[in-house]
Amino acid sequence: MKGKFITFEGCEGSGKSTQIRLLSERLKREGRDFIVTREPGGSAVAEKIRQIILDPANKEMCDECEALLYAAARMQHLKEIVAPALERGTLVICDRYVHSSLAYQGYARGLGFDYVAGINAPALGEFAPDLTLFLDITPSAAFERKHGADKDDRIEQLGLEFHAKVYEGYALQLKKFGYMRAVECGGTKYETADRIYSILKAEGII
Amino acid sequence: MKGKFITFEGCEGSGKSTQIRLLSERLKREGRDFIVTREPGGSAVAEKIRQIILDPANKEMCDECEALLYAAARMQHLKEIVAPALERGTLVICDRYVHSSLAYQGYARGLGFDYVAGINAPALGEFAPDLTLFLDITPSAAFERKHGADKDDRIEQLGLEFHAKVYEGYALQLKKFGYMRAVECGGTKYETADRIYSILKAEGII
Repeated sequence: MKGKFITFEGCEGSGKSTQIRLLSERLKREGRDFIVTREPGGSAVAEKIRQIILDPANKEMCDECEALLYAAARMQHLKEIVAPALERGTLVICDRYVHSSLAYQGYARGLGFDYVAGINAPALGEFAPDLTLFLDITPSAAFERKHGADKDDRIEQLGLEFHAKVYEGYALQLKKFGYMRAVECGGTKYETADRIYSILKAEGII
Repeated sequence: MKGKFITFEGCEGSGKSTQIRLLSERLKREGRDFIVTREPGGSAVAEKIRQIILDPANKEMCDECEALLYAAARMQHLKEIVAPALERGTLVICDRYVHSSLAYQGYARGLGFDYVAGINAPALGEFAPDLTLFLDITPSAAFERKHGADKDDRIEQLGLEFHAKVYEGYALQLKKFGYMRAVECGGTKYETADRIYSILKAEGII
């Protein structure tokens, strides 16, 4: 593949969208060739799969079925959107990827890393990212930043427990995947954006 | 699991439906507790997944996406239909299962046994059948039996090449899975039915 493939990961509220936007603006100013995408992203088949996953009527859906549907939409997105762009030599920036499935479904939902890795084998092999940026902000810090006084709400607390597991799931992956970098998120969003840009430079991505 | 789980496999035209019907009639006469099912089988979620797989509009679907959708429907069918019946102590007879995916998609379509096994891990582990009956009739014999003089048709011939690969895919699995039995299909359908019944007796399934 001629292009580079980078993915952004992180817990809810970690600022992925903001950082992807800031990075895009900078790359655009520099006149670089890149696309920003997210699963299921612009594929009709994947969109139909997403509808099944999200339809509230499908209450009886088991965790394994859900994980397999995400993996199916991922493969379709890879083949239709990501791989052709990489072959053209374009830099592909993807908002969440297989490491979200590992953190959320593999670890936090308890399906296990091995199972989720097994059903996503190409995304960890042939289509592994060149670089994965993990926005390293704990869910409690993200919640505090976002919600302030709301954090004692029961649902919020429940959510917090789940998201703390997601964070753990990411932390474990940092040790497993050599292409994953934790991005320290202290200071302003512009400081974080600068850190990300420096990492991309240092890794030879841009 | 208290119940036994048996599956029928074979190429197109191998007589699975007929044999399952003959077996069902015999078990019914004997007053046994059993269900006959097939994927996606009676699950609303799995039925929606099947619609995506079969919709001719989804021409761009990649092989991996298709295999993952089959696996997703399979897990849902397992959790909603098969596992509850097995827990009640019911004998479950399933028309095709994971070994079809291994033969058709893993081998004949070329995705590989390892990939298809990986995305179907529970169906080969926790939910492995107690016994899989492979109706051992070569595709050319099945085609001849079914179509007679039509066998020189170009499409039929193309089909035959593909189905010959499916047969090979099953033959390789017979060596891998200890619970798989080849059922010799010579003679009348009643003779085959008797052979199947004898195997079920010998294996302690009934």
